[in-house]
Amino acid sequence: MIYITRKEHFCASHKLYVQEWSEEKNREIFGKCSNPNGHGHNYSIYVTVKGEVDSKTGFLINLKIISKLIQDYILEKIDHKDFNLDVEFMKGIIPTTENITREIWRKLEGPINELSCQLHCIKLQETEKNYAEYYGE
Amino acid sequence: MIYITRKEHFCASHKLYVQEWSEEKNREIFGKCSNPNGHGHNYSIYVTVKGEVDSKTGFLINLKIISKLIQDYILEKIDHKDFNLDVEFMKGIIPTTENITREIWRKLEGPINELSCQLHCIKLQETEKNYAEYYGE
Amino acid sequence: MIYITRKEHFCASHKLYVQEWSEEKNREIFGKCSNPNGHGHNYSIYVTVKGEVDSKTGFLINLKIISKLIQDYILEKIDHKDFNLDVEFMKGIIPTTENITREIWRKLEGPINELSCQLHCIKLQETEKNYAEYYGE
Amino acid sequence: MIYITRKEHFCASHKLYVQEWSEEKNREIFGKCSNPNGHGHNYSIYVTVKGEVDSKTGFLINLKIISKLIQDYILEKIDHKDFNLDVEFMKGIIPTTENITREIWRKLEGPINELSCQLHCIKLQETEKNYAEYYGE
Amino acid sequence: MIYITRKEHFCASHKLYVQEWSEEKNREIFGKCSNPNGHGHNYSIYVTVKGEVDSKTGFLINLKIISKLIQDYILEKIDHKDFNLDVEFMKGIIPTTENITREIWRKLEGPINELSCQLHCIKLQETEKNYAEYYGE
Amino acid sequence: MIYITRKEHFCASHKLYVQEWSEEKNREIFGKCSNPNGHGHNYSIYVTVKGEVDSKTGFLINLKIISKLIQDYILEKIDHKDFNLDVEFMKGIIPTTENITREIWRKLEGPINELSCQLHCIKLQETEKNYAEYYGE
Repeated sequence: MIYITRKEHFCASHKLYVQEWSEEKNREIFGKCSNPNGHGHNYSIYVTVKGEVDSKTGFLINLKIISKLIQDYILEKIDHKDFNLDVEFMKGIIPTTENITREIWRKLEGPINELSCQLHCIKLQETEKNYAEYYGE
Repeated sequence: MIYITRKEHFCASHKLYVQEWSEEKNREIFGKCSNPNGHGHNYSIYVTVKGEVDSKTGFLINLKIISKLIQDYILEKIDHKDFNLDVEFMKGIIPTTENITREIWRKLEGPINELSCQLHCIKLQETEKNYAEYYGE
Repeated sequence: MIYITRKEHFCASHKLYVQEWSEEKNREIFGKCSNPNGHGHNYSIYVTVKGEVDSKTGFLINLKIISKLIQDYILEKIDHKDFNLDVEFMKGIIPTTENITREIWRKLEGPINELSCQLHCIKLQETEKNYAEYYGE
Repeated sequence: MIYITRKEHFCASHKLYVQEWSEEKNREIFGKCSNPNGHGHNYSIYVTVKGEVDSKTGFLINLKIISKLIQDYILEKIDHKDFNLDVEFMKGIIPTTENITREIWRKLEGPINELSCQLHCIKLQETEKNYAEYYGE
Repeated sequence: MIYITRKEHFCASHKLYVQEWSEEKNREIFGKCSNPNGHGHNYSIYVTVKGEVDSKTGFLINLKIISKLIQDYILEKIDHKDFNLDVEFMKGIIPTTENITREIWRKLEGPINELSCQLHCIKLQETEKNYAEYYGE
Repeated sequence: MIYITRKEHFCASHKLYVQEWSEEKNREIFGKCSNPNGHGHNYSIYVTVKGEVDSKTGFLINLKIISKLIQDYILEKIDHKDFNLDVEFMKGIIPTTENITREIWRKLEGPINELSCQLHCIKLQETEKNYAEYYGE
């Protein structure tokens, strides 16, 4: 059992805001993250898959395939976008690091597990100081 | 003559868009950066000042003073904000890395040059792959 | 179950030295780390907590709360300090990366587990080449 | 139980190529990595060991010992070398990140487990975007 | 006058070797870098251009154009290649960091100076510890 | 004219303190940096030299020579030491980043300028956020 990880980058904007709360309550809970016009980040996403090494190729899985899945299922939909307004799979979900991480797992789990490996972990780094990890359970 | 640099971080959203151009022209020139709802970045700002070292303190200038000026004149106005909608000093200026860098120089030049040092360079890093530098001329 | 991590920085000095050993024995075991006047590091501390995401806020826990606990229980006591002379909770404990990591766990475990999450891991990076991790058991 | 990690660097060249495949098949599977004269990387290797902290020294294990084992068993044989042509322990094994990682585990497992700690993980970073991890099973 | 920089990555192999010298002399001067089968690096290349900001677009120059020139004139020819065997523009030139840096300048100077900006600096980072810079004179 | 840079690391402790000032004045000026038992940092030092490339070796200067000079003249005296108590060449000089940078220049200028290159810049990074540069004038 070996684990390999592919890191990709994207940038996006978001704001943290609960519709049914007052401006004050939002500010109290989310601070500057609730500013009405939003802000943004350079995100790094780490996709870790696990499985057996193919004895012929020496690959668990060709990382170009993983990279293309990340591109097609994720980056295509969120890179240079606004999480609150533009991203179908985040509709109705507040775009915290935790929630984005879990939704990325849900988008990638199917396509990756059809390959010769299993999705093991999604790690999403929002700033140099904050990141989330999700293992699917 | 010695040079010292203070690095600070902020995150903000922006879009690159020329009002009087068509959607197509904007997309042709700015690509994904013209997406209507914007996107964002973790920016790093490097402020370099120069001058003589004070023989008593061994400081060119106490970097806490520089840090506070950056906080008060810049970060207070742009951190967790949208460059197109929220930032007074960027009004009417398209928020490219080049333009933000030059406007930050203009905001900091006065207050820093009143101290015992001179502003030497503003460097603004927008992504791991792109940055701008401005030396005031 | 999701994991989120907050990274903080501090700088401190220390030396590695066993009182009852000779200078030579200390040098043999600890090398330059036993130099009598000590040396220091820029440390990075990573605090990982785990738990369920709150469906309202989208947060496992507001990272500002974690950041404040790290500030109050840890950084307040060790930042810009000497581990051998200034730090109450390291009294009588040789300040290796391993020991500092474990003592930080002990200080943070109580206050964090009172929140809506559990402490999962303390990682302490001493240099670009060395770090320790502790999971509480 | 505490975990400590030592990171080391080396640079090496390799190519990914299955002898019995045609040039075309190799290019289809390995892309530019199959270029006939090879290419190379700055690799980072992270060796994580686990065990109990010695109450006298405060060390799980002196990292200089781990560093020396990595030097003698691994770096000596691969640093500034070509994985396909120069490295005894990679003979007949295609030098993917996965395979190198596993073979490094096999070389280090014996000597490290003779010490007061156990080998826990080998992580090998090939580029800023790709790395593999192996836990020995 | 503003300066903008685009960073790109590539990986390549090389060896440092003067044909007319003995094996011993080569080893004395170049050390492990003269190993007969070569080794390799992950290189980072920083291309800095300077000029006036276009008041319409806010760009000195669209960095995608710079990125494409780097791709076409440089990366296409050196990425995943061997500097001693595969690279036309390094023929007869020993592939030290200094020489590669200068030859990259020579390849890019023409195409960049035809744009609305001037090439200012090529910086080539070979390892975390070594880099060269060339300003064209 | 080409520029090459060698980066090295060291760790050391220091405190910022003017003997003839009161405790209060020291705290007012230097803040936590004046704590009586000191603190420390992982420093990075960048030594940049300039000159002509040797057409035979392709080197401006063999970086191993620069590395050894840094080792012998600087690191030997400051690595794992206390700047206030242990370092001959800092005697009577308050160990700010500015002053350490300038004294390192003074120690290296002679030996480097005897080689086939000239010392161009010393850059000293004290924390991720602060660094100084000195060009000798």
